[in-house]
Amino acid sequence: MKILLDAMGGDNAPDAVIKGVAKAIKDIEAEVVLIGKEYVIKERAKELLGRDLSEISDRISIHNAEETIEMEDTPTQAIKSKKDSSMVVGFNLLKEDQGDVFISAGNSGALLTGATLLVGRIKGIDRPALAGILPSYHGRLVLMDCGANTNCRPLNLLQFAQMASIYMANTVGVESPRIGLLNIGTEETKGNELIRNSYQLLKKYAKELNINFIGNIEGREAFLGEVDVVIADGFTGNVFLKTVEGLGKLVKISLKESMTENIFAKIGAVPALPSIKRFAKTMDYKEYGGALFLGVKKPVVKAHGSSDEKLFEFTIKQAEQFVNHKAVDELKSIYESELNKEKLDEIKQYITTLEV
Amino acid sequence: MKILLDAMGGDNAPDAVIKGVAKAIKDIEAEVVLIGKEYVIKERAKELLGRDLSEISDRISIHNAEETIEMEDTPTQAIKSKKDSSMVVGFNLLKEDQGDVFISAGNSGALLTGATLLVGRIKGIDRPALAGILPSYHGRLVLMDCGANTNCRPLNLLQFAQMASIYMANTVGVESPRIGLLNIGTEETKGNELIRNSYQLLKKYAKELNINFIGNIEGREAFLGEVDVVIADGFTGNVFLKTVEGLGKLVKISLKESMTENIFAKIGAVPALPSIKRFAKTMDYKEYGGALFLGVKKPVVKAHGSSDEKLFEFTIKQAEQFVNHKAVDELKSIYESELNKEKLDEIKQYITTLEV
Repeated sequence: MKILLDAMGGDNAPDAVIKGVAKAIKDIEAEVVLIGKEYVIKERAKELLGRDLSEISDRISIHNAEETIEMEDTPTQAIKSKKDSSMVVGFNLLKEDQGDVFISAGNSGALLTGATLLVGRIKGIDRPALAGILPSYHGRLVLMDCGANTNCRPLNLLQFAQMASIYMANTVGVESPRIGLLNIGTEETKGNELIRNSYQLLKKYAKELNINFIGNIEGREAFLGEVDVVIADGFTGNVFLKTVEGLGKLVKISLKESMTENIFAKIGAVPALPSIKRFAKTMDYKEYGGALFLGVKKPVVKAHGSSDEKLFEFTIKQAEQFVNHKAVDELKSIYESELNKEKLDEIKQYITTLEV
Repeated sequence: MKILLDAMGGDNAPDAVIKGVAKAIKDIEAEVVLIGKEYVIKERAKELLGRDLSEISDRISIHNAEETIEMEDTPTQAIKSKKDSSMVVGFNLLKEDQGDVFISAGNSGALLTGATLLVGRIKGIDRPALAGILPSYHGRLVLMDCGANTNCRPLNLLQFAQMASIYMANTVGVESPRIGLLNIGTEETKGNELIRNSYQLLKKYAKELNINFIGNIEGREAFLGEVDVVIADGFTGNVFLKTVEGLGKLVKISLKESMTENIFAKIGAVPALPSIKRFAKTMDYKEYGGALFLGVKKPVVKAHGSSDEKLFEFTIKQAEQFVNHKAVDELKSIYESELNKEKLDEIKQYITTLEV
């Protein structure tokens, strides 16, 4: 297996990427190809690790790419004009099967655009979307779409539910994961037009599509272990995701402060620190790694923009597992089948009756 | 001042209401009128407090109402048919100036419908909305709309911003509170059509309307003290609110568990318990009381459905302050002025140019 890694993407690139690879390589079997300015990577590696990457492992190599897509670049434009950027080169290697997965912490918009334009959508999938992992009571929660599609149609939410089910069954090993539709109430009459129509669509087709749809879920219940997957349009999903991130930060800061607000608290806290640290960890969304861009022909992982070496290490290991579990092949075989084509036409027909 | 209180509303009514009043009355100057089945309230009071409410304070009285609007009732239907329900009676007393504020923890939909139908919108306000208070770094955050309006137009979000500013300036005493528009990015091109148009509208009219608009805000930053008010449509706002509630619950459970997962953690945690409890408190949205329904002619407070006696006590005190600060009168004088009428027409005209 070959993991393609954008060495220039993210707030802490290339240093955090290089250190992350150096750590991850010990625990994975795959090769890792760092894509970016070769001389920069080599120079930084020597500086950071005291030796060449090749000395760390013969499974680490560098593929030169002279350009870099910056955070402020316009996605489509950047993908089309910066042909020799680490991201575009990475996507082309992935497309030409010179790699099995591409990871980047760079410009999110460019990553999604590039994946769709260069790697291509799986036939039958209307909109690929980001599946992210969040903390939840005694486990984790998959959120889809995390923000790839600001404007969605009911068909998209149905397919998000289907893709997320297949992903969880294949990768996380959860048989028939419980799928909830993010809404402001549990009754099927609740929510805006998109959500109400999506509910009806899921209700009608869930069984046939092997989606274990348990109905609407409110943010209040989402974390308490009642669902494995939360489905939302990209706008609502992204608000949900960032709210979790923001509150996670608030928790860490406030907890730290209340533990050190006075000398008694300081002393008192010391014996409890291990459990407090463990708790803070479960609240840190970063512990849950990158998001998968499901619906494109090959595995693409969006690493967190502010990833540090620890997170890159984790995301690389996660990517290897993701490829091993072949969720993307599974998605392809299901969506590209004749059967699905017929079903899709039927579903689209049914939707027209809903949205009138 | 007279506080009208729905004695039959909420999961823990009437007991929690009765106990809450008995506690709150010591700390407030207002009279409190409990509205509901008189014989039930009297009986429960004797049972819970060991004496009649009148013996606790001559500022507590009961106004009989034979019916109760249940959680599963259809709002509009319930308001129209249950004329002698504690909620409808409460609204009518409020309308007839036999009270200065109405508090209920009952059926939310019925509360909002009743307030709009019976008390009436302030002229010039297109849609009243719920302003709720949330935890934030070293302070609190006002969220508007918390969920009264599932489908909104840009004009609504502009007016939410204006109402929230006036409320904060008058009640919380924050001069020119910083208003953020809840979005999935900070750039003005981000978000769905509603949010993009609302951004343009706020950008153009904020100054004139004395709104300190600081631009888009992401859930990530919302809690870190960068804004005083978060503006959102009722759907997104409600998702945001319930996500905060849900994560708050998760925090409390997980923290408790990690503190007691083994004997060492148990012992270790003991000295830190005060600061941990204090922290858990800041994470508990319930500590922040009821939500105000702004935009109707008189003060209406939506208490949390699962309010316990402590929360009712707090919400009652909060309501007295709210009335004292006359935010509703301020809203009326602003919106009902001729000047605002002209301005409103101009704004509506401008909106048509946006939404084309």
